[in-house]
Amino acid sequence: MSDRIANALLRGKVMSADEAAQLIDNGDKVGMSGFTGAAYPKALPTAIAKRAKEAQAKGDSYKIDVFTGASTAPDCDGVMAEAGAINYRMPYQSDPIMRNAINAGEMKYQDIHLSHSGQYVEHGFYGKLDVAVVEVTRITEEGHLIPSSGVGNNVDYLDAAKKIIIEVNSWQSLDLEGMADIHRIGHLPNRTPIPIVHTGDRIGNTYIDIDVTKVVAVVETDAPDRNAPFKPVDEQSRKIAGYFLDFLEGEVQGGRLAYDNYVMQSGVGNVPNAVMAGLLDSKFENIEAYTEVIQDGMVDLIDAGKMTVASATSFSLSPEYAEKMNAEAKRYRKHIITRPLQVSNHPEVIRRVGLISSNGMIEADIYGNINSTHVAGQRIMNGIGGSGDFTRNARISTFISPSDAKGGAISAVVPFASHIDHTEHDAMVVITEYGVADLRGLAPRDRTAKMIAVAHPDYRPLLEEYVERASKSKFHHTPHDLATALSFHERLLETGSMKK
Amino acid sequence: MSDRIANALLRGKVMSADEAAQLIDNGDKVGMSGFTGAAYPKALPTAIAKRAKEAQAKGDSYKIDVFTGASTAPDCDGVMAEAGAINYRMPYQSDPIMRNAINAGEMKYQDIHLSHSGQYVEHGFYGKLDVAVVEVTRITEEGHLIPSSGVGNNVDYLDAAKKIIIEVNSWQSLDLEGMADIHRIGHLPNRTPIPIVHTGDRIGNTYIDIDVTKVVAVVETDAPDRNAPFKPVDEQSRKIAGYFLDFLEGEVQGGRLAYDNYVMQSGVGNVPNAVMAGLLDSKFENIEAYTEVIQDGMVDLIDAGKMTVASATSFSLSPEYAEKMNAEAKRYRKHIITRPLQVSNHPEVIRRVGLISSNGMIEADIYGNINSTHVAGQRIMNGIGGSGDFTRNARISTFISPSDAKGGAISAVVPFASHIDHTEHDAMVVITEYGVADLRGLAPRDRTAKMIAVAHPDYRPLLEEYVERASKSKFHHTPHDLATALSFHERLLETGSMKK
Repeated sequence: MSDRIANALLRGKVMSADEAAQLIDNGDKVGMSGFTGAAYPKALPTAIAKRAKEAQAKGDSYKIDVFTGASTAPDCDGVMAEAGAINYRMPYQSDPIMRNAINAGEMKYQDIHLSHSGQYVEHGFYGKLDVAVVEVTRITEEGHLIPSSGVGNNVDYLDAAKKIIIEVNSWQSLDLEGMADIHRIGHLPNRTPIPIVHTGDRIGNTYIDIDVTKVVAVVETDAPDRNAPFKPVDEQSRKIAGYFLDFLEGEVQGGRLAYDNYVMQSGVGNVPNAVMAGLLDSKFENIEAYTEVIQDGMVDLIDAGKMTVASATSFSLSPEYAEKMNAEAKRYRKHIITRPLQVSNHPEVIRRVGLISSNGMIEADIYGNINSTHVAGQRIMNGIGGSGDFTRNARISTFISPSDAKGGAISAVVPFASHIDHTEHDAMVVITEYGVADLRGLAPRDRTAKMIAVAHPDYRPLLEEYVERASKSKFHHTPHDLATALSFHERLLETGSMKK
Repeated sequence: MSDRIANALLRGKVMSADEAAQLIDNGDKVGMSGFTGAAYPKALPTAIAKRAKEAQAKGDSYKIDVFTGASTAPDCDGVMAEAGAINYRMPYQSDPIMRNAINAGEMKYQDIHLSHSGQYVEHGFYGKLDVAVVEVTRITEEGHLIPSSGVGNNVDYLDAAKKIIIEVNSWQSLDLEGMADIHRIGHLPNRTPIPIVHTGDRIGNTYIDIDVTKVVAVVETDAPDRNAPFKPVDEQSRKIAGYFLDFLEGEVQGGRLAYDNYVMQSGVGNVPNAVMAGLLDSKFENIEAYTEVIQDGMVDLIDAGKMTVASATSFSLSPEYAEKMNAEAKRYRKHIITRPLQVSNHPEVIRRVGLISSNGMIEADIYGNINSTHVAGQRIMNGIGGSGDFTRNARISTFISPSDAKGGAISAVVPFASHIDHTEHDAMVVITEYGVADLRGLAPRDRTAKMIAVAHPDYRPLLEEYVERASKSKFHHTPHDLATALSFHERLLETGSMKK
């Protein structure tokens, strides 16, 4: 047995994943660790999937509700979705098999602001949580849990659950101990301020204290986190990133930002990678991140001495960088803090630190409403994740995206967003490879020209025609032509392209 | 000269409103006090309107940008809009003349989350503010300003402006002194937590300290605030309020609320009035309000000993109650706190105190997206106000509305919201005179039946037909039929009714 389980009581609970899965009943509400491809349970999901398949073979039902921090990985969301083991899932997913199951109507999914997800459980909206399944690096003698590569909603789920199953993953470095900063925001009606003033402030413990008597199983694993490999920066991403950096430069010139007080929030993807690569060569110094996930580019910025501290709730590292993190966690933990999701994504701290948010999108409309989740208003891709938490509370909110997708069949600028995740009240700046649409301080009609200027040239005439039609409305504040407002999306569904 | 101007320097700045208006130049950005029909400047707007008309008569241009706390009154927004004196207006308005000017495309309006408005100015999105025009109850010997019936964005505008014009209104009671709690949230990058733990906590000064050398004019007025008279509660409002109170009762039964820890946020209108009347006879005790405006119903709850404290940024009282407040401010200031808008509406405090929000709407769609602002997606009514600040950060967010409007021509439940101010990620509960649609924990398709059940019976068959058509989509997570998604609104524009 691993010496990573130092608590005597919990050493007595060690069993196989298959045995532990027997403790999760049909219909149970299960809160799991996991945020992007990090820190999710590596063994239980497969055992749950197996149990579901066995039940189906016998004509029985076995489905559970699964709550996590955010997306997980193929050996978590993927295996359970493939086995039809999930009835309801929240708050976020990005697994291809699960996405198909959701769009096929085979499982229920609720796409929730990440900062709300732990709170919904705490407030009792789901009743009592049955089981928490949480991966850790080690268990201390006192029975405290040392988080692995992410914290997510672990504290909320461990506190709320009737039963706890712990996975101790010896792939995770023991040197991660000291990186996590565990602070509970407190229960109503006695919540107190979160005392983070600067992104690097540590305000809690390095461990999660739990009621050890709730632990029903401890499972040993030795399996890597699974995130997507790093993609080299392409030309289009470099262009968009260039405009983003130009925008930052403009803020400095305008006296609204200084080279040494840029606090970054960044979504995941090619463009954020390119932005972080660009920051390596920029005039910005002492960059801080107050964000959701630690990405390769932030590790590079730390190594280059450009970033002093990165606060997040989890890693989202390529396999190569995850190995590097495991090897050098002792060094990185001076610069990296992992916090509970209710702290990393809390409007209170986000608004206080004055960050500039930067998130991807599927489409924006001519007035700046943003669709982050649904193609043609119906086919859900991933979810809103934390983009709402950061966008609404950022000092400046930006959306960065290529101007088209699917070889030009889909325009990122449309007349009327087919699903709205961030309203015209929230989006300030939209950036594509054609430039920056700075919507701050603009009434709706003054936004359309800015938005069309960052659309793909192939779509600009169609958008201008729409604005012309809309201008015949009786109402000139936010004019629309309702009959053709969704025409781009109707064409996409009918012909496979938004083009005429 | 009034003894309300105790500072010697500022006594030397007293002049007429017409003289003071000469200090506001064409093109100026002017931050005014005012939040609902309270605490707005009573004299300058009329003088500005006069100046604009004189300029127009000479063929000159005279237009200013006007920033306030929220809506004001006919003798502020109304007179300036009527004179065509405004180029750009933010963050909120509700004046009929101004609304028409906006929808006619004659003036620009940006509808902004109230908690963002002061911050946008602070962050320099508009450049330097030229003038602040702020009503006060009195000026102390030190030159401190004692707020009148509201605080709004006064602190931000007074801090940011190059020039200050003060209106000292002797209609406002001197006993209001002590009601305001002035706290600055601090400038980036050194913001600190807002130390409010309980709604009644006082954390600042009773006055606003200003740079007196910026004051260019002091104008004396004696004019009442102007809010709409109280309307008696009608049968429909009583029904909706009944369902809201039933919902609260259900939360208590479900262990998610206690009779003595209800923290209220409430929009303005007939239904909120009915809710507050209903609370008088309920089992709820020690009710607290952490909200935007003090309404008649809260005064009644305080008088009945049912409400211990009401925190807001301004009054929104009927003329009768405003007189009562003026007469008895000494008593009420033990129970009422007026705060800067950046505090009253700050996500930090809203989320901390765990309030239940309750706001009106124009329409909700079958998945729970909420339109608060635009009829048929185009004709703006008022604005989002603080409803986004409260909805996103409430413990439980509710929207309350009659199921139809304009004699049945407009349904409050539609297939696809024609403008979205609060997304499906934010709205938890929708209440009409037909009941409660509790959307918490539900995937989109499970929401449609709940939403249709609270629609007006005349519209239910049309909504069911739409759901049936939408179910033929290839995508079953959030199915839509795009060709008819906006058909209710198209019919309204074509025929004057959403009915077939």
